[in-house]
Amino acid sequence: MEEIIEHHVEEEEEEDKEERRRSQAPSFLESLAGSSGTHSNTPGSTQSSHRLLAYSDALISIIATVMILPVAHTKIGDNEELKESVQVLLTTKIGVYLMTFLIVTVAWAAHVRLFQVIVRIDDCLALLNLACMMLITFLPYTFSLMATFPENHLGILLFCGCVMVIGLMQALVVVYAFSRPFLLNEQIQSSEDQKVYKHHILQVILKVPIMCFLASIFSFIFLQLSYVLLAIVIFLPYISQFLKWCRSKAIGQEEPPDPELLYRPSEPLSKERVEAFSDGVYAIVATLLILDICEDNVPDRETVRTVYNGSLVSALRDYGPEYLAYFGSFVTVGLLWFVHHSLFLHVTKTTRFMGLLNTFSLAFVGGLPLAYQLTHEFPRNSHNELEAIQVSCVIIFFAGINQLGIWVVALYSEQETLHPYVHYAGREHVFMLAKLALYPCVALGTFFLTCILSKFSAPIFHLMEIAVPLAFVVLRLLVRAALAVLRLLLCPERPNPRTVVEEEDALVI
Amino acid sequence: MEEIIEHHVEEEEEEDKEERRRSQAPSFLESLAGSSGTHSNTPGSTQSSHRLLAYSDALISIIATVMILPVAHTKIGDNEELKESVQVLLTTKIGVYLMTFLIVTVAWAAHVRLFQVIVRIDDCLALLNLACMMLITFLPYTFSLMATFPENHLGILLFCGCVMVIGLMQALVVVYAFSRPFLLNEQIQSSEDQKVYKHHILQVILKVPIMCFLASIFSFIFLQLSYVLLAIVIFLPYISQFLKWCRSKAIGQEEPPDPELLYRPSEPLSKERVEAFSDGVYAIVATLLILDICEDNVPDRETVRTVYNGSLVSALRDYGPEYLAYFGSFVTVGLLWFVHHSLFLHVTKTTRFMGLLNTFSLAFVGGLPLAYQLTHEFPRNSHNELEAIQVSCVIIFFAGINQLGIWVVALYSEQETLHPYVHYAGREHVFMLAKLALYPCVALGTFFLTCILSKFSAPIFHLMEIAVPLAFVVLRLLVRAALAVLRLLLCPERPNPRTVVEEEDALVI
Repeated sequence: MEEIIEHHVEEEEEEDKEERRRSQAPSFLESLAGSSGTHSNTPGSTQSSHRLLAYSDALISIIATVMILPVAHTKIGDNEELKESVQVLLTTKIGVYLMTFLIVTVAWAAHVRLFQVIVRIDDCLALLNLACMMLITFLPYTFSLMATFPENHLGILLFCGCVMVIGLMQALVVVYAFSRPFLLNEQIQSSEDQKVYKHHILQVILKVPIMCFLASIFSFIFLQLSYVLLAIVIFLPYISQFLKWCRSKAIGQEEPPDPELLYRPSEPLSKERVEAFSDGVYAIVATLLILDICEDNVPDRETVRTVYNGSLVSALRDYGPEYLAYFGSFVTVGLLWFVHHSLFLHVTKTTRFMGLLNTFSLAFVGGLPLAYQLTHEFPRNSHNELEAIQVSCVIIFFAGINQLGIWVVALYSEQETLHPYVHYAGREHVFMLAKLALYPCVALGTFFLTCILSKFSAPIFHLMEIAVPLAFVVLRLLVRAALAVLRLLLCPERPNPRTVVEEEDALVI
Repeated sequence: MEEIIEHHVEEEEEEDKEERRRSQAPSFLESLAGSSGTHSNTPGSTQSSHRLLAYSDALISIIATVMILPVAHTKIGDNEELKESVQVLLTTKIGVYLMTFLIVTVAWAAHVRLFQVIVRIDDCLALLNLACMMLITFLPYTFSLMATFPENHLGILLFCGCVMVIGLMQALVVVYAFSRPFLLNEQIQSSEDQKVYKHHILQVILKVPIMCFLASIFSFIFLQLSYVLLAIVIFLPYISQFLKWCRSKAIGQEEPPDPELLYRPSEPLSKERVEAFSDGVYAIVATLLILDICEDNVPDRETVRTVYNGSLVSALRDYGPEYLAYFGSFVTVGLLWFVHHSLFLHVTKTTRFMGLLNTFSLAFVGGLPLAYQLTHEFPRNSHNELEAIQVSCVIIFFAGINQLGIWVVALYSEQETLHPYVHYAGREHVFMLAKLALYPCVALGTFFLTCILSKFSAPIFHLMEIAVPLAFVVLRLLVRAALAVLRLLLCPERPNPRTVVEEEDALVI
């Protein structure tokens, strides 16, 4: 059972060694650079990039998620049918949210790859990175413009302008970092062909700005074409990755990765940054909920005096469903985070496809504030209420099923992506699967319940949400009991409890 | 110049060693526990607490900051005098914001101390922690109730109820962790008197719930007294810390800390978690700004057609000041983060007093969305506009001066709290001081400019904000030039550039 800990420690040790190698390299490289003449001034104070990256992750994850607020704040009249309203929403605001989420995630992935090459920073790089962040946070606004005025080319021009400036800044970052090689990844530092790397990285980075430049020119001639170009920019990495994965699975053998080029799109994402980004999304979603409560559900002094005869308790009683909805949604977000956390404890490397599934999962998690708004907005036992619950179930289902997808994909190449103690069908393996399957199953079950039972209501739904943590505990006991029964059936001759414990260990290893 | 890196590496190595010691301890302690009979079942899968803490930090920092939104969203009529409106705001919403920020920070500090004792987690602890988080995110709502209905005891009862439940859960966490000693800090694990530790920690944790219990009882008898009790709960750690610090400075000698009790209130906070919490606050403040832009500044289709004759460009031109305000505010937040980041690169240990100053600095940073709202809300050249700029200057000034305070306090005990290369008056030291002094000076200067020049306007203010990064570059050059001149004046006999570089290094060390 101690393998988890020891494995982590080993990893840390390795990271630590690498860190040491990296940090010792500068003095060596400085002398090299000094003699070759490419680098003349003193290195100045370089810093570990850890905190800059953590801050960038926090910023990007919040920006990706926060665009759900305009969706959630859209008022839906009680008279209208929810379906129609949702369709109207779908065409514009949900579109803006999803587009923002995907494009911001693409920008984030590019940022991750860039800072896998540049491992140390100095003040100049930190300021350049902040300028990039400022433009990335401006992207959602350009999407809002595009969605509201799709026939006007101003939105697309603004968007392309931002992307081009971001691209140029990133190119500047690369040029700057290569002029001070002690900032770079150790692999590139020790390579003799730094110029090849530099040109390759610049090529990859400048591809997107060039496509945006084309799109902005086409926007004057033929607007639809520039939207198509933009869609290609956004989805190309996803589509190409998916096609490659399908092909490699169909043929049965993977293409050997080019060991020369570190900066290839199929390079796995840094696990630490995937976790930081996901944490940001879960945290902002959980807190957006209470923000609505605080802004909308504090009764007015005047209302309490006139409508409720000065009784605050009875005024608050009317908000009961909101509190229930809040706690239900918070529990759901918290437990989805908990499952994600458990999952990534077992993961050693995130491939691009796993990152893609994680993005999809997070995009649905970001939709939870919408589910929260919908489920407490409608009068009880109305048709709309049932449909709101169904929308919530769909959102939770897809958030959960994509997490399950990450696990399935990780199992395909478990030697590379998972810790050895979850490889085979031990207790940890079964338990992880049970954890991951819980939310999709519950969501699916609830969905069908709403179809059958017309008496199903939002409070019941929220009570179910709050009850799910108990299911985790029950699950754990069930898995243990099932394994114990199996053990008794298979080897009933061992009465010594110590041996059973040992065997349990053996199962896990 | 390499000391920074090497020092970091050394630290990491030490942390790493400690980590290894900790993780090896369980097997030893298990056998101990097994023989003494206090611990019978298998340890289960324990995990490093790193990610749980990062997620908690993100949640708590967002919750602390997000209550500025109701303040910023308060509409101030153009006719009213800003001063009066601000006074009305001050009494309720700003009060709620500050109270929330301080109480949430107290809860966070308690959380930090708790998880300095418990260094590993398992699923059960993770779920308990999430439940605590849920109740912490509910605290702002109880404050809103208290502020709106100060004469009703419902708000205070709800608040006390939440705090008591949080306290009981934390006590449960402690009891659970002490029943599985491999989850604990190595120092406590190897101690023989675990029970003493446990009782001491439980005493400290349960102090606050007990005071809240008293406050909730007094709320039925004499409401004012329970508010006083609550204020004591919130401010006691700060006041006692401040008094202790004053006394130790006045007498000139510090009390020797009790080496037996790890869990004392004066225990320095984990630097990593202070950074994570601060990052969360800066990130949410930076993104709250763009949220307002996206929700409010996308023109209506109908308006554009009727008012602007279908010209989107002229419609957007009216929003010009908003964009400028956005970029100005983002730059300010970004650079305050940058200064904070530079400062904490030099810090090795955060004492409680430094943590307190950091909290104050962050509370003002959280006020920046208010500054942003005020500065672009009023018509140009009105009296209100100038006062809005003055409010912004005050907020920025206090955010900056508290950062400077952290540095000054750190210098008081520099042997413990700072890296050795910034101890003496080297280049890094001067440069750090210049960075820290920049924002307070600019804010103070701008404040006096607004008093003298009646033509000073919000766009000029925002352009100034955007221009500050250039000041950083100029500063760097100025510091270098000044040091070079000093060197020439003091030792003009050395013509060899190599020697100068070496001497520069010597200055830094």
